[in-house]
Amino acid sequence: MTETIRMTGVLDPRDEWEAEGCPIAASLELVGTRSAMLILREAYYGATRFDQFTARTGLSEPVVSSRLRELERAGVMGREDYREPGQRTRKAYRLTEMGEDLLPVIIGLQRWGNRWLPSGERGSTEVVHRGCGAEVGTRLECEEGHPVAPGELDLRHRPA
Amino acid sequence: MTETIRMTGVLDPRDEWEAEGCPIAASLELVGTRSAMLILREAYYGATRFDQFTARTGLSEPVVSSRLRELERAGVMGREDYREPGQRTRKAYRLTEMGEDLLPVIIGLQRWGNRWLPSGERGSTEVVHRGCGAEVGTRLECEEGHPVAPGELDLRHRPA
Repeated sequence: MTETIRMTGVLDPRDEWEAEGCPIAASLELVGTRSAMLILREAYYGATRFDQFTARTGLSEPVVSSRLRELERAGVMGREDYREPGQRTRKAYRLTEMGEDLLPVIIGLQRWGNRWLPSGERGSTEVVHRGCGAEVGTRLECEEGHPVAPGELDLRHRPA
Repeated sequence: MTETIRMTGVLDPRDEWEAEGCPIAASLELVGTRSAMLILREAYYGATRFDQFTARTGLSEPVVSSRLRELERAGVMGREDYREPGQRTRKAYRLTEMGEDLLPVIIGLQRWGNRWLPSGERGSTEVVHRGCGAEVGTRLECEEGHPVAPGELDLRHRPA
């Protein structure tokens, strides 16, 4: 049976319901570490080689190595051999469709950081819309294509 | 000077540019742990009391305690005293505007989990649009209100 629970705004008390089977928790098991997110960020920005991931994330080689292996096993990234003329064979890591589909989460974190965290000495990086130059963020929309306000959300739990 | 770098699709090579001052990294410093995200999830679902956060996240009391303190210090959650008649004074934790503004990231993780991670025995939880019952996700949109496809993104770096 499918059970629907109403969220009134984002602060509705919710005593009758537990987040068992929560896909947020399941997602975080895979990508809920700072290191995994930084590797994904670099993959969106175009990194494909192991040395690019270490240089650009500032993470250690063992961390990058085990994180790439986990992301590959989970299906978020794929690996292929490539060889440039006269060079030895190397591995290239690329986002799969599953990995590309996380882009809105990463951009949501970026937009939030730019809005709320003082950039101070670090400057800032934005993703902008090529057409008009305005910063890109995310908005809530349902599968039917309707824009959705936070006060129009219901929770639905589908038991296994 | 503002520098714009073009991302062609999500896989453009990017050797000339480093993610210094990255707001994604800055955001992850604050909320880039599984425990912080689970606490935020419960706050969106309506938890306000310490015992609700521990019971609903499955995290230990010390972890919940230090995470709530960090989120409060960062401005993501606020704390207020409240007292029901005949009871002692207690603390209530609530999302600030800054915290509510992270909702699209959490919903993005939920939608992604439902789409890509087999739910198996855990069932699933969805956020749905009250108006039509369809599942809610996020889409990319610029500040000018234009829908944005992944291939229409540019990166812009603003030095401090």
